[in-house]
Amino acid sequence: MRFSTETDRVEAFTDRVLAVILAIMVFELPAPQGTEPRALLPTLPAIATFALSFILIGIYWNNYHHMLRASRGVDGRARWANLHLLFWFSLLPFATAWLGHNPMAVAPTVVYTLIVLFCAVAYAILRQSLLRVNSIGAPFAGPVEIDIQGLPIVLYVVAVCTAFISPIVADVVLIAAAGLLLFPDRPSRAIDQT
Amino acid sequence: MRFSTETDRVEAFTDRVLAVILAIMVFELPAPQGTEPRALLPTLPAIATFALSFILIGIYWNNYHHMLRASRGVDGRARWANLHLLFWFSLLPFATAWLGHNPMAVAPTVVYTLIVLFCAVAYAILRQSLLRVNSIGAPFAGPVEIDIQGLPIVLYVVAVCTAFISPIVADVVLIAAAGLLLFPDRPSRAIDQT
Amino acid sequence: MRFSTETDRVEAFTDRVLAVILAIMVFELPAPQGTEPRALLPTLPAIATFALSFILIGIYWNNYHHMLRASRGVDGRARWANLHLLFWFSLLPFATAWLGHNPMAVAPTVVYTLIVLFCAVAYAILRQSLLRVNSIGAPFAGPVEIDIQGLPIVLYVVAVCTAFISPIVADVVLIAAAGLLLFPDRPSRAIDQT
Amino acid sequence: MRFSTETDRVEAFTDRVLAVILAIMVFELPAPQGTEPRALLPTLPAIATFALSFILIGIYWNNYHHMLRASRGVDGRARWANLHLLFWFSLLPFATAWLGHNPMAVAPTVVYTLIVLFCAVAYAILRQSLLRVNSIGAPFAGPVEIDIQGLPIVLYVVAVCTAFISPIVADVVLIAAAGLLLFPDRPSRAIDQT
Repeated sequence: MRFSTETDRVEAFTDRVLAVILAIMVFELPAPQGTEPRALLPTLPAIATFALSFILIGIYWNNYHHMLRASRGVDGRARWANLHLLFWFSLLPFATAWLGHNPMAVAPTVVYTLIVLFCAVAYAILRQSLLRVNSIGAPFAGPVEIDIQGLPIVLYVVAVCTAFISPIVADVVLIAAAGLLLFPDRPSRAIDQT
Repeated sequence: MRFSTETDRVEAFTDRVLAVILAIMVFELPAPQGTEPRALLPTLPAIATFALSFILIGIYWNNYHHMLRASRGVDGRARWANLHLLFWFSLLPFATAWLGHNPMAVAPTVVYTLIVLFCAVAYAILRQSLLRVNSIGAPFAGPVEIDIQGLPIVLYVVAVCTAFISPIVADVVLIAAAGLLLFPDRPSRAIDQT
Repeated sequence: MRFSTETDRVEAFTDRVLAVILAIMVFELPAPQGTEPRALLPTLPAIATFALSFILIGIYWNNYHHMLRASRGVDGRARWANLHLLFWFSLLPFATAWLGHNPMAVAPTVVYTLIVLFCAVAYAILRQSLLRVNSIGAPFAGPVEIDIQGLPIVLYVVAVCTAFISPIVADVVLIAAAGLLLFPDRPSRAIDQT
Repeated sequence: MRFSTETDRVEAFTDRVLAVILAIMVFELPAPQGTEPRALLPTLPAIATFALSFILIGIYWNNYHHMLRASRGVDGRARWANLHLLFWFSLLPFATAWLGHNPMAVAPTVVYTLIVLFCAVAYAILRQSLLRVNSIGAPFAGPVEIDIQGLPIVLYVVAVCTAFISPIVADVVLIAAAGLLLFPDRPSRAIDQT
């Protein structure tokens, strides 16, 4: 079985889609009306939302690479699980734009947190597909599970629920989850050394 | 003849164009007017059309890779057949946006199904070009022909014809064709094992 | 000197920029107003211009690869000559959009043909830079010179001049030049066999 | 430790994001209103700003490659330093568009020069992260420091300050800094030969 080139291609495709998303998300930023410094004020929440989405994609980009490298290959199911993950990622600029223009509104916050949650769920599904390819006991079945899998999904469910009541609390939960995920390199690097 | 690097380059270029199309198609989604949940209602058909185009591109992405890997190389004719395929793919966001904004209208449905049909025809032409490079009896000349070649083209012709009478029936035919194509990995994987 | 990986990187970067240009050029297409078939009429010249730009980029993509593969490497000057070529390519969507919306107007036709001419000149400059790296007598110094270098630049100068008098004649010259360039694979393939 | 493939992936991701930014920045160019030659006049400052951003990204693209090749690898901190650099790059099209539409205004010039400064600072932080990976005395710790690190940051700080008083002088400083950085290949090529 020639799995290795398949893995490379899936990883390169994901990196390509994420690179495009990172670079074009900024096009949803509203062009400032006028040339006074205060013309930038309405774009500040949009830039903050953009920065949050940027960090979220950066977290996935880092972990994704470690997960795929730890896997022995991909099959058809894993490829579709990967496309499913990319589908939710590709909706992130849409949600980022809506939330960025209406940072205090309930519906945009709910939609944004829902898409972030669906990304986390799709990532977990992809991980299960890769575990199936590698049989139980694959290298990434261990410590990664805790810090990238279970915890953020719970936090994102909390964020979706609180978004209906208070968008600001939901934002805080999202930022806290991003902060927790920002340093997952230690267990991953441990995997590299295995 | 140094065919192998040529094939890698053609495949990488196609993956690059498809990655950009997947990631930017979402920019045709209309930004919701207002922040109420019902502001999302007009975008729902657009998101559904986006999802259908996403799945169609995913199907081609999966099969394309198998076809090119099964080929022994590419020549100038195959490269232009590939660019011809990318031309119709690149028109898909345009058709997706028009259909997504007018999901029940005849003309957008006809244009969308026509472009999907042209993608399938262009894929068949590319396949013929690769068969010419490899001479008759290439590995992918067998079972792939049935599930990715003949069947969808017939279904897409049916979809184009029914689109003139009933856009909804045409949508159902497109979704049914996508469903049939969603699991073409078995014969392709069989090819890998050859 | 480790020239080879440099060449790979320059080629991959050019392919990436061209892939994005191909995929996003369609976003300049005006969204049809209304859902009647005739709503497509105003987009037809835009689609035709898009197709012409698509073919032009395809021609360069094909020849570029042969030229870079025939070269023994790139230096700093060749890298900047390459970025200079990408600069004019990146202006092509802008000119394509303006011409597509005003297919019979003089100024958009002049700007479009000028940018096509500058692409050809930038390609010639890049070729000179590569010849410098390889010293005179590089494999691609021979037959390619005629069909990709001298002829199109002359034709594009003619197209720019006629655009001031008759945009349609300029379009015909551009299409004729594209037709002449569409089959440059034979000498290039001959180079491959060297 | 398998650092080498990590470095390749980080470099490819950066190249992907930069390629998308280069190709889509032109979409911020205002479509000319009308078909007269003078309809192009309002787009000329936008094209000039686009050209400046294009050259700035080209300078980073050239130096980035040399810096990463000179490094022995990347770790988690360097990956985030790299994403931090891409964050400021991805804001460049936004600043380019605002400045291009208002070339003489103070606030857009300040924002543009600030983002250019933040790119240079992020590049310096990335360089520090790579030096940490390689320990003190890495090959790129020598001559590169002078021409790509210290000088531009000082010039960009000057540009930001003068932008508050005279946008044109700030533009001249930016262009002068780009001119100084346009020929950094000699020390870098010297590194290649090490």
